[in-house]
Amino acid sequence: MHTLIGQSSKVEKWGVFELALRGPESGNPFYDVRFGARFAQGGTVIEARGFYDGEGVYRVRFMPPGEGAWEGVTFSNRPELDQFSCRLVAESPSEGNRGPVEVANTCHFSHRDGTPYYPFGSTSYGWAHQPDEFAERTLNALAEGGFNKFRTGIMPHYSEHSLSTASCFPFQGNDGSDWDLSRFNPEYFRMMERRIEGLLERNIEADLILFHPYSGPWNFGSLPDWADKAYLRYAVSRFAAYRNVWWSLANEYDLMPDKTVEDWHSLCRTVAEEDPYGHLLSIHNGVRLYEAWKPWITHACIQDGLAVEIPGRAVALRNAYMKPVIYDEVCYEGNFKDRWGDLSAEELVFRFWQGAISGTYVGHGEVVEHDGLGRDVVWTGIGGELQGRSAPRIAFLRKILEEGPGCGWEPLDPWWHTGMARKEDKTFLVYLGKDAPGSWEFRLPTKELVLPEGAEFRVELIDTWNMTVTPVAGVFTALRRDDYFYGDRGGGKVPLPSAPYMALRIRALEG
Amino acid sequence: MHTLIGQSSKVEKWGVFELALRGPESGNPFYDVRFGARFAQGGTVIEARGFYDGEGVYRVRFMPPGEGAWEGVTFSNRPELDQFSCRLVAESPSEGNRGPVEVANTCHFSHRDGTPYYPFGSTSYGWAHQPDEFAERTLNALAEGGFNKFRTGIMPHYSEHSLSTASCFPFQGNDGSDWDLSRFNPEYFRMMERRIEGLLERNIEADLILFHPYSGPWNFGSLPDWADKAYLRYAVSRFAAYRNVWWSLANEYDLMPDKTVEDWHSLCRTVAEEDPYGHLLSIHNGVRLYEAWKPWITHACIQDGLAVEIPGRAVALRNAYMKPVIYDEVCYEGNFKDRWGDLSAEELVFRFWQGAISGTYVGHGEVVEHDGLGRDVVWTGIGGELQGRSAPRIAFLRKILEEGPGCGWEPLDPWWHTGMARKEDKTFLVYLGKDAPGSWEFRLPTKELVLPEGAEFRVELIDTWNMTVTPVAGVFTALRRDDYFYGDRGGGKVPLPSAPYMALRIRALEG
Repeated sequence: MHTLIGQSSKVEKWGVFELALRGPESGNPFYDVRFGARFAQGGTVIEARGFYDGEGVYRVRFMPPGEGAWEGVTFSNRPELDQFSCRLVAESPSEGNRGPVEVANTCHFSHRDGTPYYPFGSTSYGWAHQPDEFAERTLNALAEGGFNKFRTGIMPHYSEHSLSTASCFPFQGNDGSDWDLSRFNPEYFRMMERRIEGLLERNIEADLILFHPYSGPWNFGSLPDWADKAYLRYAVSRFAAYRNVWWSLANEYDLMPDKTVEDWHSLCRTVAEEDPYGHLLSIHNGVRLYEAWKPWITHACIQDGLAVEIPGRAVALRNAYMKPVIYDEVCYEGNFKDRWGDLSAEELVFRFWQGAISGTYVGHGEVVEHDGLGRDVVWTGIGGELQGRSAPRIAFLRKILEEGPGCGWEPLDPWWHTGMARKEDKTFLVYLGKDAPGSWEFRLPTKELVLPEGAEFRVELIDTWNMTVTPVAGVFTALRRDDYFYGDRGGGKVPLPSAPYMALRIRALEG
Repeated sequence: MHTLIGQSSKVEKWGVFELALRGPESGNPFYDVRFGARFAQGGTVIEARGFYDGEGVYRVRFMPPGEGAWEGVTFSNRPELDQFSCRLVAESPSEGNRGPVEVANTCHFSHRDGTPYYPFGSTSYGWAHQPDEFAERTLNALAEGGFNKFRTGIMPHYSEHSLSTASCFPFQGNDGSDWDLSRFNPEYFRMMERRIEGLLERNIEADLILFHPYSGPWNFGSLPDWADKAYLRYAVSRFAAYRNVWWSLANEYDLMPDKTVEDWHSLCRTVAEEDPYGHLLSIHNGVRLYEAWKPWITHACIQDGLAVEIPGRAVALRNAYMKPVIYDEVCYEGNFKDRWGDLSAEELVFRFWQGAISGTYVGHGEVVEHDGLGRDVVWTGIGGELQGRSAPRIAFLRKILEEGPGCGWEPLDPWWHTGMARKEDKTFLVYLGKDAPGSWEFRLPTKELVLPEGAEFRVELIDTWNMTVTPVAGVFTALRRDDYFYGDRGGGKVPLPSAPYMALRIRALEG
């Protein structure tokens, strides 16, 4: 047993501890050398696979899930890397570090420390491979836009634009086609790590797309199975210690003709088995939904043009899966002529509310062609600055959902009512969508709600587009009207401005 | 080996062959005696469990799946019943005998002989236990109503009405509570067989509900697991040889508090394992959907108040499960004040069309209180005569769906369009629902459809309420307009009567 000296020995809980050793450079270190470490605290042992980072350097990373001392011991098939030990102390997490996000309350999420997490994500498929300075601007736009999740590809995204900007690739070999699939390019993965770290600094989850069908002649969507699996193991060994990582096995998995559904099951399982932390894992579809009930799928990630267009539809898949449902692609705000890229900001904001009121979540994307730059140079292609008008309204919705205690808004009476949700039986949201009534009669469905007779409520009017919250005069008092509804004892109504996109927040007064 | 003499030796394919033997009457023949038979033709062997029918008589039934000679040999733990052999010849099926219904074309059904089957079912939970004469009237009403499936309970349905009419029970013992769960009442099951045979004579599928939560003090929904399993085995041994049987494990399974989801999995598996023919198997929910992706579930049977109320919603579960979806309970036509029983006929017919246009199916129910008879004596309670106005319109829809070649209407572009379906790329249906436009511009989505340039179509206007089909003048010629639509070369429009509930049928002219 060797003891390592000179390794950083303090790290925060859910931070990244890294141990580096020198090892063999000859042969193919990516394939010939097995290397990793076991980290133990009492009876808890976490086995992390290490990786070859080029130039004779081997690294293994560890995200301590608990505070206090941890002992690490390496293992390897090479004596130069085997049986080194180290000791580290995990300290209290710093501000903003709430731990990885996981499923909570069946269809919702929270951080490991218990803080509820409401995903408000955007998407730029080819962001990661842009120059650092441009990628940094995107990060700032993302944070200013109020987003807390970013879906982005690990593999480069082939386009006119990327032909001129892609400077390195995941595999060694000549740009274009002659890849040595048995040798990764550490520089490429280090770039990806800078991106993940940039998101982490801003408390943004990195929803990493592992495969996609957009690699053109680079062909990364049609690699042989051994290369796919090796790539997954390499990516997991490098990225899994970052607490903000989510695995998205693919974008539009069903548009990759060389892989069967069974292949996808196997690729999903590979990631789930390799990842010692159980990060969130899903897969995104084109037209055909993946089997989201599979045990390795933590939440459904859905593309569907209608999913949240139609009131009452979003809840159907939630009812089926009983897992969190993120409608990560519901068409984009944009000025494309394609039907998937021509939403008005109003329509996209409407869809976000539709998802939220159904106890599901929605993802943002933007394809606004601007400054004569063409289709390839838009937000959802590469990042940059947001051009659209939906982001501030989406951030406003995020604020509404996050306010108050409880974890997750649940549809009220999902068998019947489509526009009402509750949190902890204390707060209710009513979303009126495209309707523009002049008033709203106070009523709450009885089906999943038992209110004490005489319970009192205050109501606020939310203008979801203009982002205002206005208290409504008076107090409403619950009276059971019939089998299905509580009304207000005095028959009270909430006056409304006869405009679309209004919502109401109803809060119980503490009795 | 004994050879049986005097047994019927001719039966039609998919008919019921029965073999009866005398055996022990002492002890508990339901539990002490193992009895069954293996029927063989070449390499095909079907093992059927037999059953004790009382008074020393043991029977085993067999539905020959192929024509020609079959050899049967009994097995038993009692020498009086063991190793008897018989020979039967299965002849061509008679008219109307198309074999059992099974899943076809992923989300649809056909009979075993290949004839497409479109389920148009109604529901009477307590029908089976009504007096024979009343049950017969119900059968006639059902057949005249144009239905081809009937959901009905095996266990008696507790109500004011059934307290006076229920004359026998599935178990031996005193009416009311003191059941001997280890002894079935053959008379009760013979009654059920008369019901199944009555349906069979009319080519109506028997969707048999094995458990339900409505047995009041009889308590049949809360039996111990051993009694549940014994009951399932006994029911399967008696009924499985009827080709028109479907298994519906429960009605509102989630409203039976003494059974967990794991219990239901186990009960479903018991039926699937006992049934040598693989009859269709599903389970009906109250509020919480069952896990329809389980391998033993052949099709989803869904209750949901919104399922087909909202255009575009029905297809969501179909997309998720990729199995046939029958929305078997979508609220009932009726005059109850309950929200599940107050649909107008127009609304129920609308919901049937909504399901059909989404590539799914819908079930009928009727709770019209009439003649001062009270809530218990309505169609969906016990049967009788249909009082409502939806049935003829539903039969009209059935006729529309059945016409022409192909098996099953598939949504056209389910990612986007909610009101169009196709059969074999030759015939299209457009359903306009509650919209009442004055014309319809000829257009067909391109997404899943490749039409030869210049393909010609004729259009018919279908008034779904008044049940008329009217040819529209002229021929429409497909011209690709953009990425998403074919239009008519001459910009042709179909004139419409500005009334709701219209549909269009578009048929390709043979070129």
